Amino acid sequence: MSSILVKRIRLRLRPLDMETGRHIVVLHERDSQQLGHMPGSRIRIGANGREYVMIANVSGRLVEPGELGTFIEATEILGLKQGAEVEVSLAPQPASISAIKKKLRGESLSAEEIGTIVRDIVSNNLTTTELTAFIVAQYTRGMSMEEIVALTRHMVETGEKLEFDTKPILDVHSIGGVPGNKYALLTVPIVSAAGLKVPKTSSRAITSAAGTADVMEVLAPVDLSLEEIKRIVNRVGAVLAWGGAVRLAPADDIIIQVERHLGIDPRCQLLASVMSKKLAVGADRVVIDIPTGLGAKVCTREEARELAHDFIELARRVDVQMEVAVTYGGQPVGYAVGPALEAKEALEALKGEGPGSLIEKATSLAGLMLELGEVAPPGLGKQMAKDILRSGRALEQLRKIIEAQGGDPKIDSGDLPIGQYKQVIESPASGYVKRVYNERINAIARAAGAPIDKGAGVRILLKEGRKVERGEPLVEIYAEHENKLDEAIAVAKQNFPVLIEGMLLEKLAHRPHLE
Amino acid sequence: MSSILVKRIRLRLRPLDMETGRHIVVLHERDSQQLGHMPGSRIRIGANGREYVMIANVSGRLVEPGELGTFIEATEILGLKQGAEVEVSLAPQPASISAIKKKLRGESLSAEEIGTIVRDIVSNNLTTTELTAFIVAQYTRGMSMEEIVALTRHMVETGEKLEFDTKPILDVHSIGGVPGNKYALLTVPIVSAAGLKVPKTSSRAITSAAGTADVMEVLAPVDLSLEEIKRIVNRVGAVLAWGGAVRLAPADDIIIQVERHLGIDPRCQLLASVMSKKLAVGADRVVIDIPTGLGAKVCTREEARELAHDFIELARRVDVQMEVAVTYGGQPVGYAVGPALEAKEALEALKGEGPGSLIEKATSLAGLMLELGEVAPPGLGKQMAKDILRSGRALEQLRKIIEAQGGDPKIDSGDLPIGQYKQVIESPASGYVKRVYNERINAIARAAGAPIDKGAGVRILLKEGRKVERGEPLVEIYAEHENKLDEAIAVAKQNFPVLIEGMLLEKLAHRPHLE
Repeated sequence: MSSILVKRIRLRLRPLDMETGRHIVVLHERDSQQLGHMPGSRIRIGANGREYVMIANVSGRLVEPGELGTFIEATEILGLKQGAEVEVSLAPQPASISAIKKKLRGESLSAEEIGTIVRDIVSNNLTTTELTAFIVAQYTRGMSMEEIVALTRHMVETGEKLEFDTKPILDVHSIGGVPGNKYALLTVPIVSAAGLKVPKTSSRAITSAAGTADVMEVLAPVDLSLEEIKRIVNRVGAVLAWGGAVRLAPADDIIIQVERHLGIDPRCQLLASVMSKKLAVGADRVVIDIPTGLGAKVCTREEARELAHDFIELARRVDVQMEVAVTYGGQPVGYAVGPALEAKEALEALKGEGPGSLIEKATSLAGLMLELGEVAPPGLGKQMAKDILRSGRALEQLRKIIEAQGGDPKIDSGDLPIGQYKQVIESPASGYVKRVYNERINAIARAAGAPIDKGAGVRILLKEGRKVERGEPLVEIYAEHENKLDEAIAVAKQNFPVLIEGMLLEKLAHRPHLE
Repeated sequence: MSSILVKRIRLRLRPLDMETGRHIVVLHERDSQQLGHMPGSRIRIGANGREYVMIANVSGRLVEPGELGTFIEATEILGLKQGAEVEVSLAPQPASISAIKKKLRGESLSAEEIGTIVRDIVSNNLTTTELTAFIVAQYTRGMSMEEIVALTRHMVETGEKLEFDTKPILDVHSIGGVPGNKYALLTVPIVSAAGLKVPKTSSRAITSAAGTADVMEVLAPVDLSLEEIKRIVNRVGAVLAWGGAVRLAPADDIIIQVERHLGIDPRCQLLASVMSKKLAVGADRVVIDIPTGLGAKVCTREEARELAHDFIELARRVDVQMEVAVTYGGQPVGYAVGPALEAKEALEALKGEGPGSLIEKATSLAGLMLELGEVAPPGLGKQMAKDILRSGRALEQLRKIIEAQGGDPKIDSGDLPIGQYKQVIESPASGYVKRVYNERINAIARAAGAPIDKGAGVRILLKEGRKVERGEPLVEIYAEHENKLDEAIAVAKQNFPVLIEGMLLEKLAHRPHLE
């Protein structure tokens, strides 16, 4: 149909003083109707002898008939002033739309079709409606492993890439969902202390109290350019950078917004997202951590195993060596939750004073990486990781990384800015700790100010299986501001973060009035 | 999770001078992060002792940290001035979101869940992403007949309704897709001339050259209120009004925008849309027309039969008597396409001078309605319709409707404002007319100015099966403006609207250079 609808109208430019983050214009409803245009669909704008395709919304009041309203970004790219004449016609839909419709019908997409969609996502060429349709189609129709491979490769290709002259390049990724998961601050230094390269990028917290990037930022800047990441890895062997500062597989960052909005996490997209980020940093040997347990992203071992199999199959097809670790994710890792508290705990662990759950997890993952990197014999990686940790070489290595990223290498666990407002939460009953609720610990730490207030967070004093007496301290809350401490206390009271065996869960009564 | 995240921040109001058509506010990215808010999700705003829930976008430049940007509609509803303090916290997602996610997982929805979604759609409570997810889920997961019934009923309930004191109330609806489909201008007067009530609402053209409302508007105003529609039907028995002027099943109008944007038409939604509009006008006996053929919405008889079965089953469940007619939709109905040309053709047909295809279709549908309305015995409706048409009573009845709607009842087919610029397109070959392409005829009529220019359009001179000589006139194009006529001619040349047997379809050659 597109080729035979050549209707053109001339409109006068009317710049609108607002940013939209995209190239959006506004037609008056009369002109929209005359063009046969549907609100939100694309128009072609001829200006200065060039043609631009932009998404056009429709308004009855924002512009007059005969005017084309242009938001700031559109005005800039057109390079025209108020009143300039432009020629407007309907634009054909981008090719990706027919591919999205194919997936909506439940058909498989070719690698080429997936490439078209990914390129349009990255160049912000799809409307919210179209992007959502693609992600929902992925979720309801699924994707074959061939499609996931194509998706992964195109997500890598449409972004920037790190390339190193030597191999192997190691990387590690936890699919997350468990609070206090600061393992990377131990794992990455251990592995790089053994001479392997680890260009680790990670995210900031979105709904959690601290992402790895938030924790590392307590010790050093994490907002590094691609060139800086490469230079630091080549010099000291590893980096702990914020992934959001670089355009590695940027399609993922756009897709993930929609997934979060809808609270869905299509398996095919999860696989492609993780793998594309790893390929983009040049990694060829990767360890994946799947925290598993009640309150984590993956609840059952069976689910974890299925996901692990898919990861391994995908890795095989994109020529990456991979080990997947299923770890316990039913309660926080270590005792500390919140940026500075976690950084402190990580530094203590590197000095040999840290909690067992953190050291076990960090050295297990490091061990797999050492074996993958062929510096430890099969089965002996974890022991080597523990030796490196115990020797102090991992701490020394973290200090080198901190210095290379622009932080103070002499920083010690006692120097960290822990919030000055503190409240101890006591056990309401005697018994055994049955559960420490991930989600509730997160909510308390966030109410206390984490991750923005670096010093805010929660310290758990007794974890699952420990015996506790009524009145004994269970949890400490830290905040930088008194009112936030109060908020966090209120949250803790409303949904008590720890389950004690023998605790009254609910009180129900029916007391007949005495007659 | 929502109940335990009670984080609250105080922001100063900053009105933004722009309309968005919804209640949308803007958070600075720092405040968004501090709240744990995701761009596009909802926040609760406490102001003046009241609480409002609005969708919050995020910007790094539109507002400063500490400010809440409010677009015009949001500013108005909050009733606050620049700098006023408001308290902001995350709002829980509306209940409809979990219902939408259920449908995304492929589960069935209860009538109550569907009601929640429809109410949120009508009150503009869903984001574009959420609304799209629902429609895509309908499309990929489908809906059971129980769900379609609930959807239909809730779409009716959330809008305005016409109620008449007497029964039966007749109605007719064509699912469309064929140009020149002005049957209603004959069918409705015929049926109401027989004493039946027909409160017919119809749409304007979106992608076609003329909707029934556009054609009727040449003869009388169609922009009627619900009260006017009721009064006119009670007085003269029928109306031919524009459905867009009244809020009948308004959820449909919102949903259809997304469907058009994506170019999908979920069967369940089509059924619910049509039926809800009919129930909303109080109709209890309905005829559905399914134009079928190449280039129509429904291509095959089998598809048409399936759709008809679904319509009949839905009608049974909502207590509506229904007849479904499958009509030929492979070429335009009658010869005229475009508002004034179609109105002219309809008037001529009512005077006994119209084309056979139009009269056959209009009287067939009218006949079914007369039988449904029990004024004609089974099998004799069409004959009765033809008698009414031939007697002039249908024309007389249309004149009454025109007068009641505020038009000139004396208007005649010669009075109509047909475009003064005209071009005849001649046959490029001798042979038989094999096809008249619906889509191409539409495109030419639209390029000529229809439906905005009422006098613009196309007259087809020879339809399928007719013999034609090379150079003989095939099609006439009419326009109100010379430049539009030129555009329409260009469109016609680019994609010739008629296929003549023996016409050269493509010319391919390889001529080696002589040596």
